[in-house]
Amino acid sequence: MRPSGRKLDEMRAVSIETNVTKHAEGSCMIRIGDTHVLCTATIEDRVPPFIKGSGLGWVTAEYGMLPRSTTSRMRREATAGKQGGRTVEIQRLIGRSLRAGVDRVAMGERQITVDCDVIQADGGTRCASITGGWVALRLAVNKLLKAGDITSDPLVDPVAAVSCGIYAGQPVLDLDYPEDSDAGVDGNFIMTGSKKLIEIQMSAEGSVFSRDQMNQLMDLAEKGVDELVAAQMQATNA
Amino acid sequence: MRPSGRKLDEMRAVSIETNVTKHAEGSCMIRIGDTHVLCTATIEDRVPPFIKGSGLGWVTAEYGMLPRSTTSRMRREATAGKQGGRTVEIQRLIGRSLRAGVDRVAMGERQITVDCDVIQADGGTRCASITGGWVALRLAVNKLLKAGDITSDPLVDPVAAVSCGIYAGQPVLDLDYPEDSDAGVDGNFIMTGSKKLIEIQMSAEGSVFSRDQMNQLMDLAEKGVDELVAAQMQATNA
Amino acid sequence: MRPSGRKLDEMRAVSIETNVTKHAEGSCMIRIGDTHVLCTATIEDRVPPFIKGSGLGWVTAEYGMLPRSTTSRMRREATAGKQGGRTVEIQRLIGRSLRAGVDRVAMGERQITVDCDVIQADGGTRCASITGGWVALRLAVNKLLKAGDITSDPLVDPVAAVSCGIYAGQPVLDLDYPEDSDAGVDGNFIMTGSKKLIEIQMSAEGSVFSRDQMNQLMDLAEKGVDELVAAQMQATNA
Amino acid sequence: MRPSGRKLDEMRAVSIETNVTKHAEGSCMIRIGDTHVLCTATIEDRVPPFIKGSGLGWVTAEYGMLPRSTTSRMRREATAGKQGGRTVEIQRLIGRSLRAGVDRVAMGERQITVDCDVIQADGGTRCASITGGWVALRLAVNKLLKAGDITSDPLVDPVAAVSCGIYAGQPVLDLDYPEDSDAGVDGNFIMTGSKKLIEIQMSAEGSVFSRDQMNQLMDLAEKGVDELVAAQMQATNA
Amino acid sequence: MRPSGRKLDEMRAVSIETNVTKHAEGSCMIRIGDTHVLCTATIEDRVPPFIKGSGLGWVTAEYGMLPRSTTSRMRREATAGKQGGRTVEIQRLIGRSLRAGVDRVAMGERQITVDCDVIQADGGTRCASITGGWVALRLAVNKLLKAGDITSDPLVDPVAAVSCGIYAGQPVLDLDYPEDSDAGVDGNFIMTGSKKLIEIQMSAEGSVFSRDQMNQLMDLAEKGVDELVAAQMQATNA
Amino acid sequence: MRPSGRKLDEMRAVSIETNVTKHAEGSCMIRIGDTHVLCTATIEDRVPPFIKGSGLGWVTAEYGMLPRSTTSRMRREATAGKQGGRTVEIQRLIGRSLRAGVDRVAMGERQITVDCDVIQADGGTRCASITGGWVALRLAVNKLLKAGDITSDPLVDPVAAVSCGIYAGQPVLDLDYPEDSDAGVDGNFIMTGSKKLIEIQMSAEGSVFSRDQMNQLMDLAEKGVDELVAAQMQATNA
Repeated sequence: MRPSGRKLDEMRAVSIETNVTKHAEGSCMIRIGDTHVLCTATIEDRVPPFIKGSGLGWVTAEYGMLPRSTTSRMRREATAGKQGGRTVEIQRLIGRSLRAGVDRVAMGERQITVDCDVIQADGGTRCASITGGWVALRLAVNKLLKAGDITSDPLVDPVAAVSCGIYAGQPVLDLDYPEDSDAGVDGNFIMTGSKKLIEIQMSAEGSVFSRDQMNQLMDLAEKGVDELVAAQMQATNA
Repeated sequence: MRPSGRKLDEMRAVSIETNVTKHAEGSCMIRIGDTHVLCTATIEDRVPPFIKGSGLGWVTAEYGMLPRSTTSRMRREATAGKQGGRTVEIQRLIGRSLRAGVDRVAMGERQITVDCDVIQADGGTRCASITGGWVALRLAVNKLLKAGDITSDPLVDPVAAVSCGIYAGQPVLDLDYPEDSDAGVDGNFIMTGSKKLIEIQMSAEGSVFSRDQMNQLMDLAEKGVDELVAAQMQATNA
Repeated sequence: MRPSGRKLDEMRAVSIETNVTKHAEGSCMIRIGDTHVLCTATIEDRVPPFIKGSGLGWVTAEYGMLPRSTTSRMRREATAGKQGGRTVEIQRLIGRSLRAGVDRVAMGERQITVDCDVIQADGGTRCASITGGWVALRLAVNKLLKAGDITSDPLVDPVAAVSCGIYAGQPVLDLDYPEDSDAGVDGNFIMTGSKKLIEIQMSAEGSVFSRDQMNQLMDLAEKGVDELVAAQMQATNA
Repeated sequence: MRPSGRKLDEMRAVSIETNVTKHAEGSCMIRIGDTHVLCTATIEDRVPPFIKGSGLGWVTAEYGMLPRSTTSRMRREATAGKQGGRTVEIQRLIGRSLRAGVDRVAMGERQITVDCDVIQADGGTRCASITGGWVALRLAVNKLLKAGDITSDPLVDPVAAVSCGIYAGQPVLDLDYPEDSDAGVDGNFIMTGSKKLIEIQMSAEGSVFSRDQMNQLMDLAEKGVDELVAAQMQATNA
Repeated sequence: MRPSGRKLDEMRAVSIETNVTKHAEGSCMIRIGDTHVLCTATIEDRVPPFIKGSGLGWVTAEYGMLPRSTTSRMRREATAGKQGGRTVEIQRLIGRSLRAGVDRVAMGERQITVDCDVIQADGGTRCASITGGWVALRLAVNKLLKAGDITSDPLVDPVAAVSCGIYAGQPVLDLDYPEDSDAGVDGNFIMTGSKKLIEIQMSAEGSVFSRDQMNQLMDLAEKGVDELVAAQMQATNA
Repeated sequence: MRPSGRKLDEMRAVSIETNVTKHAEGSCMIRIGDTHVLCTATIEDRVPPFIKGSGLGWVTAEYGMLPRSTTSRMRREATAGKQGGRTVEIQRLIGRSLRAGVDRVAMGERQITVDCDVIQADGGTRCASITGGWVALRLAVNKLLKAGDITSDPLVDPVAAVSCGIYAGQPVLDLDYPEDSDAGVDGNFIMTGSKKLIEIQMSAEGSVFSRDQMNQLMDLAEKGVDELVAAQMQATNA
């Protein structure tokens, strides 16, 4: 029934390749099916003005799509003169989600910026960005720990994200682009490794959904997050 | 326990004053406690390029805050040279939410723009904007029906929104500003009059929440939406 | 002869409602006929760089129109990415006019920003903004005096503004929108309560006027300012 | 008493050199004392959208200052990313003033853009721009008449502008920069050759003025405009 | 003598991996040492307004750097609100260079946009972009030929680019980042496969060079281009 | 053969008029045939952040064209909201070129900004800007020397620039606009008075050129620079 032939509760293939660029303190290329996102983490000593002197750390994120990561070429946002509304929404979401898994006291007064750049898009880029972004963050924090710059681990629980939606009347896990374009209801579930909720964004474009359906989608999301966290563990323990 | 002395499941006072400006096709001032939002609906014959010639209608929204709607003065976005990320997120949400309650075929090829301008803010401005925005939309559509420009009502079910969150460890309904600033978890529930879900946005800033808590918040939201829809009905049947 | 049936030297009804928003240090809604402007005054300790350390105060103003304050919807300036030329002209005029009535030494080194937001427009919004803006300023200064932050009153003389023009060949007072669109000559007179001149802007679009006519317009303006100052006094003495 | 030693009612030396650039349809360099403005007029067949098909012409103006036209270097507006408020005000004034002397029917459906670029500034640049801009416009219109593109002269009366103000308590004509920086009251009078008024802008920064003073300033302005129009006639009849 | 231990006339290792993204009509990842650039070519039917209806084709290019492609993180240009001067210069150079190798009549009235996005930077990104950009263009044109959309090959001669400079007093080929930061003179040579010149940009920052040195640099450049064209041939014949 | 009737190696008439504006520390109007550029040099005590405290000086440049310096009117860049790519390229080139002739230690920690504004354009504006810009710089530095603000001359060798190209198959010196529009290959040679090279920019738009032709163009450029430096010497020794 799904265009890809996947079962309703079946994720696409997940792979996370780490240390893919020599400059960043942490980096990975995450591939969820044909969605490929390059995630890098940059450590800087400065923090935003509003926490200066507080001793607390800050994690922030930026998101971009290469112009031809999509089926037809998108206008480059630098040329358009600003980030679009969708971009701004997504990068704010990535930042909030990653911060939910960080002990900002243990992190110390420094900032880590996670850049998520979509090399190839096939649906679910924001979820891939969060999941891969956490891996880049993990690797950067490992450097701080190894160097003795921080002494206790600020990453208490991994953070991962998966999309679910109602496609052709059925709740499905991990929508790819053909499903995403067609789904009346879809959303993103951001959770910790212990399945605590960080953020839920369910949205019905020209449609509605019931509370029962909401519960089925949450069941699917929990299954997906389990698989993603396993991939994160494997990538960062290597 | 709540700063305002309200019970955990108690909304603030809701009032909706209609036809508050002489130019707009539909308008209201919605007051949810000390949060006051002026909502106007403008009917135009032109539609966005991507639906030109489709016969379908479009509903879109814009959101703004007067500079001194807040405790300390905010910079005017027109002076800053662009709408901030928060503004863009909110107005996209209002537009999506209102469209979910619209039969775009019945509406005919025209656009209705709902402007939501916050006159005074005390938490929950985006929910007030959706709830009041639907009233302005209802009144504008009434004009089209009365004039015979459309023959069947495109507004199938009212749309309303309420915020819920976890404040001091307790799930509470309709957060005001003091609660909002302090809540570890909060979110917005957008529903139809028949309690179908349109959009859920739950977010934990520096915190997490369980699936049980999520269910309690949804119970509160359903109660709140019932009250808001009653106020909408009263305002638009007058 | 006038579309509204008013006499040549007759103002529209004037009302000034004070303290209309809970956050601002001073506020009013001024209504000149169907022109409604919300004016707020914000006191801040910082001053612009060019007077830092001078001990002098500063009064500045910003002006905006809600998108549907007008007959057909205007584009929101925050969306357009900048304030238009007309907006910039008007807010500079409001600021200059209000400063003319202020003893900047008595004010002390602080800034008061007067925001004038047009809720509904029917001609004469800049004059209404100056007249209402002075009321907001007066109320904010009263707070400073009451709190003992300043000891002598920096508002030496009230400031008010009225438009006059030549409509259908006749000098008329206080043009409304139908007159304004049609007048060959119109302008704004900003004066103090003692009828001293602060600013005159007379402009003939595709027309010219004589010095005699200029004198007749000034007679009308003096009559109008008398009525406006009376309304200001009543509103702020209450 | 005046820094320059001029009498109260004495203009600076005025010279207008025509045809100073080979590309423009009309051009001049106007020099009012040490204020030098290059004015060019460009004829184009297109008109702004709001008069398309009306058969009417349009005259518009743009104004700029070279970065080092002033005592200390100004930031280039193209680098700043926008025209400042003062620039916008001035170019709107130039356009309105020139249009007041144009029979837009006789002009035919075309646009003439007058560019006024300040090469060296010493006070009174907007008045010099209007006076010189009219000369550039006159020369461009002469080309249209000579070519038979229009048959009756749309320039019915010349347009000129001069500043007056109250300096050291005395009404003075044609303020230069040292006077302008110090004057409590100053303004610009735009008139036709037959001394009809087009625009008056009197402004008191941190000061006020009486109606008697206003009349004295208008007497001075009439004298100044007489001299400027004489210079315009000499330049364009050559 | 060179930091990398290379000989004066020795290029870094060159590799070109083709078809690295599934959406673009042509794509490659070019790696010149540690400089990695992703190049994609997009075919569109529309052309820029200035050649509409001419029957001629157009090739244009855009260039970007991922924020953490560099040693320390660069600000994202989409966030800064515009492309910097360096970016604009580079993408104009890439476009001009590629067009020099194109028969625009044979290409037909269509546009090919070559996007060059730097994944990792270590000097010479603009030369790598031109060399890799030509490969992407070649692959896209191959598709047009194969599909019969064009019948004669518009790519008459390959285009490649290499940097040369004077480092520690010696002319060297293919500067990497440590050399580039230190070289008093450097530049880029863009040539065709038959060693015809397309563009030369030699620049001495705080230094000068002689005509003899210029000739030595051109000898080096010819050697480098031979190697690059060989790599292009190998990649596109596969 | 050349549209102007000039010989292949013949420059246009060159004149440099100095001290053309009273405010700038150094200024000239350079005329190369019908290309007229106003160059001013401004001395400021502040330097860019990246050399603060280094004791080194900085020379930078900005470039602009008056809207009607060209055959048809160009849009004013301040109105467009940004400097175009061509402008940015040119002003970066002027700045780099002038810096190459400056001993930044001898200059002391100060900045000189050279503004080059094109009053009338007929090809070769960037070369005229560099050549005239050096004269303005020379005059400003003379003031510093005369005032004793610096003690040894930082301008070790004059800097001049000339364009060459291949027009109708022949290498020609100093292209004017009709040649420039038609030349398949053209470029700019920036040299010192002693014929050392600073920058070479040769570019073939839709064409290519041989190394032999490159040598012929360099011969022409050397001849042109000799004449330009002679004019610079004459202008600055007067």
